[in-house]
Amino acid sequence: VSGLVFREEDPFAPIEYAYQVEEVICRRRTKHQELLIFRNPYFGRVLVIDGVVQLTERDEYFYHEMLAQVPLHAHPSPSNVLIIGGGDGGTLREVVKHEVVKRAVMVELDAGVIEASKQFLPTLSVGFADPRTQVLEMDGADFLAQTEGEFDLIIIDSTDPVGPAESLFTGECLAHAFSALKSGGIFVAQTESLHFHPDFVRQVQRRLAPIFNVVSLYTVSLATYAGNWWTFSIASKGGDPREVLRKCEVPTRYYTEEVHRHAFLPQSVYQKLMAED
Amino acid sequence: VSGLVFREEDPFAPIEYAYQVEEVICRRRTKHQELLIFRNPYFGRVLVIDGVVQLTERDEYFYHEMLAQVPLHAHPSPSNVLIIGGGDGGTLREVVKHEVVKRAVMVELDAGVIEASKQFLPTLSVGFADPRTQVLEMDGADFLAQTEGEFDLIIIDSTDPVGPAESLFTGECLAHAFSALKSGGIFVAQTESLHFHPDFVRQVQRRLAPIFNVVSLYTVSLATYAGNWWTFSIASKGGDPREVLRKCEVPTRYYTEEVHRHAFLPQSVYQKLMAED
Repeated sequence: VSGLVFREEDPFAPIEYAYQVEEVICRRRTKHQELLIFRNPYFGRVLVIDGVVQLTERDEYFYHEMLAQVPLHAHPSPSNVLIIGGGDGGTLREVVKHEVVKRAVMVELDAGVIEASKQFLPTLSVGFADPRTQVLEMDGADFLAQTEGEFDLIIIDSTDPVGPAESLFTGECLAHAFSALKSGGIFVAQTESLHFHPDFVRQVQRRLAPIFNVVSLYTVSLATYAGNWWTFSIASKGGDPREVLRKCEVPTRYYTEEVHRHAFLPQSVYQKLMAED
Repeated sequence: VSGLVFREEDPFAPIEYAYQVEEVICRRRTKHQELLIFRNPYFGRVLVIDGVVQLTERDEYFYHEMLAQVPLHAHPSPSNVLIIGGGDGGTLREVVKHEVVKRAVMVELDAGVIEASKQFLPTLSVGFADPRTQVLEMDGADFLAQTEGEFDLIIIDSTDPVGPAESLFTGECLAHAFSALKSGGIFVAQTESLHFHPDFVRQVQRRLAPIFNVVSLYTVSLATYAGNWWTFSIASKGGDPREVLRKCEVPTRYYTEEVHRHAFLPQSVYQKLMAED
């Protein structure tokens, strides 16, 4: 890498990642975070928050499709969807692809991320213009604490669980998420890398287990998140989220019904993960 | 990353990876390559050849188990095994775990890698002392061109397919590999990242298809190889390599019979990959 370089500052990663910067597109301090968008010749536009890569235009669909389409297809009728975080809009875009969704509420602490995405990441931010979308600028944990039986899906699309995002993964907050769901509701959260953060994954799984009927874990391989074997912790008040309850009728680039079923960790790998300390 | 840093120089990778260096353990020019072994606080010892990370002590088992144990369990009786490359010994270690293996031939162009591994990577190089092991210092493509019906398995454990390793993936060399196998034999090769090198993966699959009865692709997620969604191209003169023909009775850390079956790419993902240009 020569010329202008962005070096990621991820306190969670034992490898440092560096990207060539073709052009700095946006660099600003929002109310809560340092935001940077640059263009890389391979990845296209890259969104960075507080020194950590959040997405690249080239490969964001792997993450956003897997985070959103799996719970959307595991629920028989996801009319009311809550997204916590996800200010870039990628998850919202996936949610509003579905006609069955009547209301998509995004609770994002930092409206500055939404604003920047609307300006500079048009392929991500399309869902903000959807009439079913409602944006609340507030803390996700606070919102969950005051919500009862309102959503069919809750999707946690947070930054790394240090700083503000940490509060979303406490046992208390996960119990509030359970209460905020309607009967049969599904909860899903991005829970970091199985290579680099197995302790965190295990912790979230163990906190979810006493609260929900069914708790499970699925993964996707991501090139631009440190550790890359990315996990999604999913928990259901209803059936097993491994089952695809609705045929996939929305356009996707990676997600298929087969990918859905295949993404769940084999039992032997899951058991080994959970047996460790 | 502060202090002494190793920055990977991988012409194949659109991200640059940097590792903290706690101690330089070995740095030498072999007959063919620049070799570096350093210690990183998280990954343990890291082997670098010509500026590219080949393995880390912490996570090498994902790669070596998947490269070797899948074909070893897909063959009914793998008595004669050929490894091309793999001078660090990790693949050989996996092969000689099996009592059914009567002969393990390693053809490695660069004996300097083997020597360094024996000195500094004891957990990798254990198989070199096995009486069934035979090491030949020569070019793998040349060896295949002069070999007929001798092996049950051929495992290509090469560096990136630029420079010497490129010759292993020509149609001619793959046809020689076919001829070097006994009836029912299985060929497997590491074939780079599905995120960063889909063209190369596709090319190898297309070259194997007219030669072998069955051609398939399996993957594992690796944190320390650029692009990380790592592929293994497997081809068989006999049955479908997705099937586990022998119960796993050797010690493994990641590989299980379930992992074996699960590692193969879902059909929908495979078809999409092969349909692209």
